[in-house]
Amino acid sequence: MKKNKPCPQPLKGIIPPMVTPLLDNSTLDRKGLDRLIEHVIDGGVHGLFILGTTGESTSLSYGLRRELIELTCAKTDGRVPVLVGISDSSMEESIALAITAKDAGADAVVAAPPFYFSVGQEELVDYYTELADRVQLPLILYNMPAHTKINIEPETALKLSGHPGIIGIKDSSGSGVYFNKLLNIMKNHKSFTILVGPEEMMAATVLMGGNGGVNGGANMFPKLYVDLYNAAVARDIDLVLKLQEKVMEVSEKIYNVGKSDYKYLQGLKAALAHLEICNGFMALPLSGFGQNENDIIKENLKNITD
Amino acid sequence: MKKNKPCPQPLKGIIPPMVTPLLDNSTLDRKGLDRLIEHVIDGGVHGLFILGTTGESTSLSYGLRRELIELTCAKTDGRVPVLVGISDSSMEESIALAITAKDAGADAVVAAPPFYFSVGQEELVDYYTELADRVQLPLILYNMPAHTKINIEPETALKLSGHPGIIGIKDSSGSGVYFNKLLNIMKNHKSFTILVGPEEMMAATVLMGGNGGVNGGANMFPKLYVDLYNAAVARDIDLVLKLQEKVMEVSEKIYNVGKSDYKYLQGLKAALAHLEICNGFMALPLSGFGQNENDIIKENLKNITD
Amino acid sequence: MKKNKPCPQPLKGIIPPMVTPLLDNSTLDRKGLDRLIEHVIDGGVHGLFILGTTGESTSLSYGLRRELIELTCAKTDGRVPVLVGISDSSMEESIALAITAKDAGADAVVAAPPFYFSVGQEELVDYYTELADRVQLPLILYNMPAHTKINIEPETALKLSGHPGIIGIKDSSGSGVYFNKLLNIMKNHKSFTILVGPEEMMAATVLMGGNGGVNGGANMFPKLYVDLYNAAVARDIDLVLKLQEKVMEVSEKIYNVGKSDYKYLQGLKAALAHLEICNGFMALPLSGFGQNENDIIKENLKNITD
Amino acid sequence: MKKNKPCPQPLKGIIPPMVTPLLDNSTLDRKGLDRLIEHVIDGGVHGLFILGTTGESTSLSYGLRRELIELTCAKTDGRVPVLVGISDSSMEESIALAITAKDAGADAVVAAPPFYFSVGQEELVDYYTELADRVQLPLILYNMPAHTKINIEPETALKLSGHPGIIGIKDSSGSGVYFNKLLNIMKNHKSFTILVGPEEMMAATVLMGGNGGVNGGANMFPKLYVDLYNAAVARDIDLVLKLQEKVMEVSEKIYNVGKSDYKYLQGLKAALAHLEICNGFMALPLSGFGQNENDIIKENLKNITD
Repeated sequence: MKKNKPCPQPLKGIIPPMVTPLLDNSTLDRKGLDRLIEHVIDGGVHGLFILGTTGESTSLSYGLRRELIELTCAKTDGRVPVLVGISDSSMEESIALAITAKDAGADAVVAAPPFYFSVGQEELVDYYTELADRVQLPLILYNMPAHTKINIEPETALKLSGHPGIIGIKDSSGSGVYFNKLLNIMKNHKSFTILVGPEEMMAATVLMGGNGGVNGGANMFPKLYVDLYNAAVARDIDLVLKLQEKVMEVSEKIYNVGKSDYKYLQGLKAALAHLEICNGFMALPLSGFGQNENDIIKENLKNITD
Repeated sequence: MKKNKPCPQPLKGIIPPMVTPLLDNSTLDRKGLDRLIEHVIDGGVHGLFILGTTGESTSLSYGLRRELIELTCAKTDGRVPVLVGISDSSMEESIALAITAKDAGADAVVAAPPFYFSVGQEELVDYYTELADRVQLPLILYNMPAHTKINIEPETALKLSGHPGIIGIKDSSGSGVYFNKLLNIMKNHKSFTILVGPEEMMAATVLMGGNGGVNGGANMFPKLYVDLYNAAVARDIDLVLKLQEKVMEVSEKIYNVGKSDYKYLQGLKAALAHLEICNGFMALPLSGFGQNENDIIKENLKNITD
Repeated sequence: MKKNKPCPQPLKGIIPPMVTPLLDNSTLDRKGLDRLIEHVIDGGVHGLFILGTTGESTSLSYGLRRELIELTCAKTDGRVPVLVGISDSSMEESIALAITAKDAGADAVVAAPPFYFSVGQEELVDYYTELADRVQLPLILYNMPAHTKINIEPETALKLSGHPGIIGIKDSSGSGVYFNKLLNIMKNHKSFTILVGPEEMMAATVLMGGNGGVNGGANMFPKLYVDLYNAAVARDIDLVLKLQEKVMEVSEKIYNVGKSDYKYLQGLKAALAHLEICNGFMALPLSGFGQNENDIIKENLKNITD
Repeated sequence: MKKNKPCPQPLKGIIPPMVTPLLDNSTLDRKGLDRLIEHVIDGGVHGLFILGTTGESTSLSYGLRRELIELTCAKTDGRVPVLVGISDSSMEESIALAITAKDAGADAVVAAPPFYFSVGQEELVDYYTELADRVQLPLILYNMPAHTKINIEPETALKLSGHPGIIGIKDSSGSGVYFNKLLNIMKNHKSFTILVGPEEMMAATVLMGGNGGVNGGANMFPKLYVDLYNAAVARDIDLVLKLQEKVMEVSEKIYNVGKSDYKYLQGLKAALAHLEICNGFMALPLSGFGQNENDIIKENLKNITD
């Protein structure tokens, strides 16, 4: 068993929500995983987040999730913090995953609200309090209303920030209003981590005081997002705008192909396959692109990487 | 290992979505489970459905789900068909539950669409086709858009009905339009089971050709729902309206207390505790009623059972 | 000025939500309107409802709405009650329309909740109370959550039924649960009218005690819906199921062509044009079918009218 | 009739969405309106936007809207551009309002998508194209999905920007992702105005290239928002963060009192009454604060204005 180092507080920078490289529904692409980890660490990322939405966590068996946790922690070997998603409709299963994460040497766990039943803010406080009481790694809240049908209200996040085990929040709502409310309500809790999911708004949030981004594009182009983050921290607006243009090009050319509600993820996995980083297979219920969309991604990638 | 009998087609009548009696988040109330099973079978129900939404399936650990499957099948011992919910965000875990169900002697499995990612109708067809290919018990579709964020369109149900392993659908959308579209599109497939979830509309659906109800109230008052079903089958409208009044009284007095989005389930479990059938504990993220609401349920129950 | 007769309470039967025949965005198809009125009255309908959703009310100028009210009342000439939609985001404009309706001799007005701002149930009570205080015709509530983003809760309808000017509700939610709750909560107010919008569930609601249907299909085939209503009132289930099959055929073949969210209305207007009853033009922001869908409707109509 | 000057392109800065001062549902608070106009112009705002959501436009009669347009244009007398909301479910009525606006000397009109029927992106293009063809003032798109149930997709905005009469967009979605996509897709159309509604994210959007804010708080504290806008334009991040703190204090203390879905507007109007700028009455279906909430606003205001 690994000894867990204290997790930095606040966590800062670019922490990619890692895709899960798969050969099929129940088999990891282990070589792809190794390449992906090296690729993003080489690109200068500040941590890894596995088993999030981008990692198709909820589609994977628990066996595969445990395998992924162990392999990722071993391969990363302490070079950067590893955050492990434990979101589940059943708290007992979340806790079981957290034990695996701790034993493997992970640095923190990340949990979205339970996503079958829709509960209110009071139940959310109870839920996260019990979860934080029972997991033995620092816990990061994960706001993801599009999938969970519930928003973690800023007041709820403030209440939960009083728990010593709850160290931050990752917001994937996409709302600029919500994010600025979070920043404001936490303004006297500077060690509380506030990260944004969607890369299109990462620079803006960092300029306003956010701690960084959990941006899917960093799977492909880690350095671009790290550079943008650094430019925002340095308040170099000219550079921010120049790099932002590149980030928006990725958004437009890779995440906007096809017609499905999860075309972001299809484009990302297709691009990673074209870049020969890892297999593009997607676990059910999702499915990867067909030939036509794959060709578009291939063509679009050329323009971006030029 | 039990030998599985062929499941009746179509399934007909009242098949209660069984609550899961719990002592705490991870412990079954085994005695309560035994009492509940005897209670509903004594009331004349035509089958049991465990691990649905009313059974808080998604809140329970897999260990507890397996235990519940085995105990229920053993206790029921073939007196009525047992349907087992295998809804999960991960198909691999659904299949693991289906194996447990088959080995325990269950008669069919029931699966809602995956509920974290929202997929389209084409992906739904692929998902259910693969699931039906891989499970070794008859499969019933479970339409539950409030929780899964997706509707199984009538056309999708029709396509899936062509799979020999898919034998029916349980609709909990609450939509009278949807249900009548289902009845119409399946009118030449009389062996395909069409059951309705919400008891408030059960009688109307049976009058129009539906096969029965998966009605939560049958946990408490199985005979009432069986009688209403029989009256609808017999087209005895006077009796239907008389019993419907009683069913609506349950809906108004038991499911409409308090303010939460899941007051239906809170009321049902509280009533079952007052009726001394089983423990009223609810698994996280849900929570049972406080004293105040419990007192109201107790008082309201008196009026109903008079 | 016409003298207004007392409106029957409850209103019963089939009251078509009349399409608004148009030559262009701001010109009534007056001849089509005349033909349509005669067509549905010949078919035996129990009343007319103009300026509802099916009448594209909110897309029309106030001038055109006033013209339509006056022409319809004059042409109907007291043969059946005329209900006039006055739904508006501004109460002052609703009241102005109600004055026109009264002066023209209409029998009742119908109002959905205000549809730009989403208000709560308390504000709804205040809103409808003031509206009923100020209009001089009986007022019917119009539940249409898909367009107004708000549900008129059964408890709210019960409260409002205490106002002497509020005589009923038309429910277009499509929910079988909601409708049965309405029937139950109003069970001691037998003079309060409860009508259902979607024709697919009309027969079921009448069997359970509803007063009738405001069904779009009655623009095309008034006799079919009147016959189905009568069969349900007579509790002739065999006949109900036979006619229901026809109604569902209309739903499937006329309302399910194309891909838009308002294909119901496109199909209905296209069919009325093919039947040479009135022009199929639709006011902005909606648009009528193109040639391809029109051809499908034409072909499908043949099968239905055979 | 006033002569209309060419509208600046792009429009820049703080353009308050003016509340509509009312004495009752159908009477303007004319003195309040005068004071409000002088107050915001004194505060340095770059334009006025009347008859938006904050102006309760859709709740007002057309007569009152016309009166407001004429009074506002006369009082402003060309000191800053006046933008007039013409959003309506009926295009004919939108055009009638635009004629009034032009005759009164307004500089541009602003239109949200029609808000009863939900249409698709193609119909939106047709709708706005015809609207722009027919109004004789520059037209600004108004993205307000919470009220209209429809998002103006960035691709749709790009298409519409090709129409010579369409000069910009005001986005009130609150989405940071959406806004950055807008900025990116319009990056080669620098004269196209892109304004943000929610003040909580105004500074961030201006830093990233947005043209300014249509911020409700500027009714109360115009100088604060103008200063924040100027700081963002000057890229003075320290000053931005200092003023942003004040803006968030307004958001927290004025817009977050009570429980209604429109507490933002209730707080704003209550505060304007306490500041003795104009009457706090709200038109039906909305209602102003009760005594309790009014007292909280009064107390909270003291802290802010200190």
